[in-house]
Amino acid sequence: MKLPKKTVQRLSRYRRLLVKYKYVKDSFIYSHDLARLLNLNPVQVRRDLMLIGSSGNHRKGYNVNELNALIGVTIDSNDYQNICIIGAGRLGRAILDYVTGEDINLKVKAIFDIDPQLIGKSFNDVPCYEIGKLNKIILEKNITVGVIAIPSEFATSIASILLDSGIKSILNFTSVHLDLPKSVYLKEFDIVTTLEEMAYFVKCN
Amino acid sequence: MKLPKKTVQRLSRYRRLLVKYKYVKDSFIYSHDLARLLNLNPVQVRRDLMLIGSSGNHRKGYNVNELNALIGVTIDSNDYQNICIIGAGRLGRAILDYVTGEDINLKVKAIFDIDPQLIGKSFNDVPCYEIGKLNKIILEKNITVGVIAIPSEFATSIASILLDSGIKSILNFTSVHLDLPKSVYLKEFDIVTTLEEMAYFVKCN
Repeated sequence: MKLPKKTVQRLSRYRRLLVKYKYVKDSFIYSHDLARLLNLNPVQVRRDLMLIGSSGNHRKGYNVNELNALIGVTIDSNDYQNICIIGAGRLGRAILDYVTGEDINLKVKAIFDIDPQLIGKSFNDVPCYEIGKLNKIILEKNITVGVIAIPSEFATSIASILLDSGIKSILNFTSVHLDLPKSVYLKEFDIVTTLEEMAYFVKCN
Repeated sequence: MKLPKKTVQRLSRYRRLLVKYKYVKDSFIYSHDLARLLNLNPVQVRRDLMLIGSSGNHRKGYNVNELNALIGVTIDSNDYQNICIIGAGRLGRAILDYVTGEDINLKVKAIFDIDPQLIGKSFNDVPCYEIGKLNKIILEKNITVGVIAIPSEFATSIASILLDSGIKSILNFTSVHLDLPKSVYLKEFDIVTTLEEMAYFVKCN
């Protein structure tokens, strides 16, 4: 079953909330509480959970651990998806920090940079390679997701190496839009454009 | 004239491309080149530029410097919008780095943290204050945009201080969804949820 993108996003958000309660023995949660905490419609929440086969208990709500496991079965791979981060600067390592502590089926397998001071080191136990080894390491480590966190001028050439290496999904933080084949799942987040848009709406309100 | 959100985003992207040509004397660009470089529809580009009063020259295309200035008049404030970044960790300082070099009408006026090692220092000439001074500094420096780049557990309480201080727009990088009044322009980007969604689609394709 392939779920709609928005459903997967919500399931991921449910789990990130639920995971906080997982050490509480026999914890239950109502769909309306889940909805309220995430600012969603309770009907939507119940529909999502029904879609993955969880109907909950009318009186007690949903069993947190069962629901957690069910979301995992639905949205995780059996094995981890392997990620690499291109750029071991502040942004790249900030992303690494975010992912490291999380209870998710994603694993950062490599980080790449051009700085000789960083190459050969490890960050959060992830080795930092020189960027020339991108293709080799991606194939060796079966990496499917790439995060681009380098200066914008290099984005296009790095993206084409990622494509050649068979990467399936790219998260691009530069301000250069990547023109990729539809088969690659692309997400882009341009910090400066986002801030400019925010400033514009502040000005107009 | 209040432009649609998507139009503002595109205008901001045109400018970020055009700015690279601004030191070339008398440079012109065709709408179809602009469209191609940004992976947009040329008709869309012409419509956007006509909307802000630029029709271009049929033979030579659009004058880059004139277009740049016109976009500026349209989407920038007369004065800078002042921003603060909450969190002087890797992510907060990565954002600061991104914004610092850019030719945009946004200015980071303050960065906040709880770490005594960071408080009192400056990063890219932006002073780092203790987080207890958030309200005071926002009012003093007329800050309208706040970027939240701290651990998720503090997001809600920081957002409520930002609201009380009269902030108009918030960019939230934590995984906690903020439930704010409609009058505040909110953008959220949750790195972990985004990566999970990407991994899901890799698995399904």
